[in-house]
Amino acid sequence: MRTVPSTPLLSEDAVIACLARHFPREHDALLLGRGDDCALLKGDAPLAVSTDVFLEDVHFRRSYFTPEEIGFKALAVNVSDMAACGARPTAFTLSLGLPEWVDEPWLEAFFFGMAGLANERRMALAGGDLSRCATLAVSITVFGETDKTGCFLTRGGSMPEDAIFITGSIGLARVGLAVLEAQGRPAIEEWPMACAAHLRPRPQVDAGLMLSRAGANARPPALMDLSDGILRDLPRLLGLTGEIAASGAGCRKLGAKLSLPKDLLHPELIRWAEEQGRDPVLEALFGGEDYALLGSCAPDMAPSLLTAVNGFTQLGTVTDDGLLTCNGVSLADLRGFDHFAAPGSPAPPRRRSLPFYRLTKPDRTADKEIET
Amino acid sequence: MRTVPSTPLLSEDAVIACLARHFPREHDALLLGRGDDCALLKGDAPLAVSTDVFLEDVHFRRSYFTPEEIGFKALAVNVSDMAACGARPTAFTLSLGLPEWVDEPWLEAFFFGMAGLANERRMALAGGDLSRCATLAVSITVFGETDKTGCFLTRGGSMPEDAIFITGSIGLARVGLAVLEAQGRPAIEEWPMACAAHLRPRPQVDAGLMLSRAGANARPPALMDLSDGILRDLPRLLGLTGEIAASGAGCRKLGAKLSLPKDLLHPELIRWAEEQGRDPVLEALFGGEDYALLGSCAPDMAPSLLTAVNGFTQLGTVTDDGLLTCNGVSLADLRGFDHFAAPGSPAPPRRRSLPFYRLTKPDRTADKEIET
Repeated sequence: MRTVPSTPLLSEDAVIACLARHFPREHDALLLGRGDDCALLKGDAPLAVSTDVFLEDVHFRRSYFTPEEIGFKALAVNVSDMAACGARPTAFTLSLGLPEWVDEPWLEAFFFGMAGLANERRMALAGGDLSRCATLAVSITVFGETDKTGCFLTRGGSMPEDAIFITGSIGLARVGLAVLEAQGRPAIEEWPMACAAHLRPRPQVDAGLMLSRAGANARPPALMDLSDGILRDLPRLLGLTGEIAASGAGCRKLGAKLSLPKDLLHPELIRWAEEQGRDPVLEALFGGEDYALLGSCAPDMAPSLLTAVNGFTQLGTVTDDGLLTCNGVSLADLRGFDHFAAPGSPAPPRRRSLPFYRLTKPDRTADKEIET
Repeated sequence: MRTVPSTPLLSEDAVIACLARHFPREHDALLLGRGDDCALLKGDAPLAVSTDVFLEDVHFRRSYFTPEEIGFKALAVNVSDMAACGARPTAFTLSLGLPEWVDEPWLEAFFFGMAGLANERRMALAGGDLSRCATLAVSITVFGETDKTGCFLTRGGSMPEDAIFITGSIGLARVGLAVLEAQGRPAIEEWPMACAAHLRPRPQVDAGLMLSRAGANARPPALMDLSDGILRDLPRLLGLTGEIAASGAGCRKLGAKLSLPKDLLHPELIRWAEEQGRDPVLEALFGGEDYALLGSCAPDMAPSLLTAVNGFTQLGTVTDDGLLTCNGVSLADLRGFDHFAAPGSPAPPRRRSLPFYRLTKPDRTADKEIET
C-alpha cells in the first residue's frame, strides 16, 4: 500500500492523475495513446481481441481480495484468453465503474496491481472509460498478436489419437474459492497455494507462445483457456454439443479417455478433499477459474512439448467413440453434479445465483452450451 | 417489439441464441469471429479503438428508454468516438451485465436496436462477455479504420485564424433529457426532436469520413466528439488547461471567438428555453450528449467543407489571445454555472451525483480536466 492522502470521494481529475502515475501514455504498440476520442493501434498484423468483465460479488469479493489483487486478476483473466490463442498480449482498454467509497489509496493499490501485470507483459493501456457505479465493475478488452514464428491457435482441430494436455494446475483455485468463502482471508495461512490460485492466477502466456510456435511448422495444437473446469471445457474443445455424450448413437463424435492419477494433483487439493470427505480427482475435474490451458496435439508432438512447455502434462488421448471417461469412469455420470451445493459445505452465491456467462466461449460447433 | 415467448430468467443458452439471431458470426472485418477465446481482426491497417460504458441510472433510465433505444444508444455513443477521429467503425465487442428481470422479449428488442445500427454501419460483433449484474450495464469497445483516401483525425493542431465548426445540432439532447426527466416518455409528443436527440443520437460517421478525406491532402482538421457541451469541450479542442482562460496572462494560448445566432438553434430548443425563461444560446453552449462533432480547420478549407459535409456550420474562429467568447460574452463568466440546479427546474441525478467520466477525453495537453 502507498501513503497517499485519503479523499472520501475521488474527482475525475484525481482518478486520471492516479491512472497516469501507473500507466504511461506512450507505448510501442500504440500509434496514438489515450487522451483523444480513439486510441490508434499499430496495424501490421492480425489483431487478437477478447473481452471479460470482472464484477464485485460476481467474480470477486472485497472481503478477501486486496485492491492490488482485484486489479491484477481483472487483467489476468483477460490475458489468459490471449494465452489460450497462443497470442502475446500487447494492449488493453479499461472500463471502470467506481462506487463512491473508492478513495485514492484504494485506487493506487488497484492500479498498482493491474500495472504490475501490464508491465510484466509489456502491455499498454490504450484507453477506457470511467463512470460511477453502485458496485465495483471492471470490463477489459485485451489486444494481442501472434509472434512472427508462431500461429494463432483455436479450439478446433482435435483428431482421434491426439494427446490431451494441460499446462498449469487444476482444481486448486476451486479449493481457494471454497476456503476463502468459508474462512475469509485468514484461510491463506492454512491454504496458501490454493488461495493464491484464486486471488492471483498466473496467465499461461509463455506456454501459449511455445504452443503457438510448435503449431507453425506442423498441425497446430487445439487450445483453450480452462476457466470453467475440464468437465465443462473438454466437451467444448472436442466440439461436443449440449450434453456430454453418453452413447455413440448417431453420427461419429470425438471423445476422450483421460487418466488423472492422484499424484498429479496439488497437495493442498488432496488435503482439502480428504478433510471434506471428497474425491480429489473429481474436485480437479470440476475445478474452474484455474486459468490453465487445455489442449490437444498430434501424438508425435507431445514428447517435444513436454520438454519445451513449462507445466505441460498429458492427461489422455482423443477418441472417436463420443465417450468421455476419466480413470475408467464415464464423465456423463457426473453431469449436473455440484457438491458445492451438498449439505454442510460452503455454497458460494457467485456460482449458484450469479452464473458467469461468456459470449466468447460457446461450443464452436453448436448453438448450445452445456447448461450449468 | 417481437412476439417471443417470455421467460422470467434467461439461461446463457437463451442469451447467446438471441444474440446469434441478430449478429452474424462471420464478417469481412474478422478473420475469426466469436466463439473462441479471442476473435481475430484483420490487421492490414492501424486500428482505431475506443471504449464507452452505458449504465442504467447513470447514462439512461429504463422509465423512458425502450430496450431498442438502450441497445441503439449504447452502440451509438461508441460509434461517435470513431466519427470524431474520421474513422469508419468496423467491429465491436460487447460486455453485458444483465439483471434478473431481463426476459427474452426485452433482450430481443435490445439486440434489435443495437443490430440496427451495426447493420447500418456494417459492423461486426467480434465477441464479448455476459454476466449477471444488479443493474443493466453495457460496456462496448469499438474498432475502426480510416479510409485509404483519408487520415486519422485528432483533437490537436488548431491554429490561430482557423475556422471553428460543428456538424450536427447542439443543445437539443439537453432539452430532451430535461423534458424526459420531468415528464417521462409522454414528453415525446410535445418535444419529438429533442427527445429523439437524447434517446437515439445519430453518430456523425459520414461527416467524420468527409473531414478525414479533406485532411488527406492538406492540414487535417482538428476534430472531437462534442459529448460534454461546447463550454467544456472547446477548451479541450484548443488545448486549454484546467480553467477556461479568463486572461492572457502567462504564455500565449489559443482562444476562440464564437458567434452563435439564435436562428442556428433548433425551434424546440428555443421554445423550451423561452418557456423556462432561459437563454437558448446558453442552453446550446451547455448542452451535452449531442454527439455532434466539434472541430477547427484552415480558413481556406471551410468553404469547401460547407459544401461537402452535411450539417457543417461555422461557429467562429480560433484566436491567439487565450480568451473564449460567444456573441461578445466571455465564456469564463459561465464557468461552474449549472442551471439544471436552479430552483424549480428538474435536477437529473445522473448529472449531479453520478458524473460521467471518460478516460479517453482528458485535455490532451494537460493533466487536469475542467472540474464539473
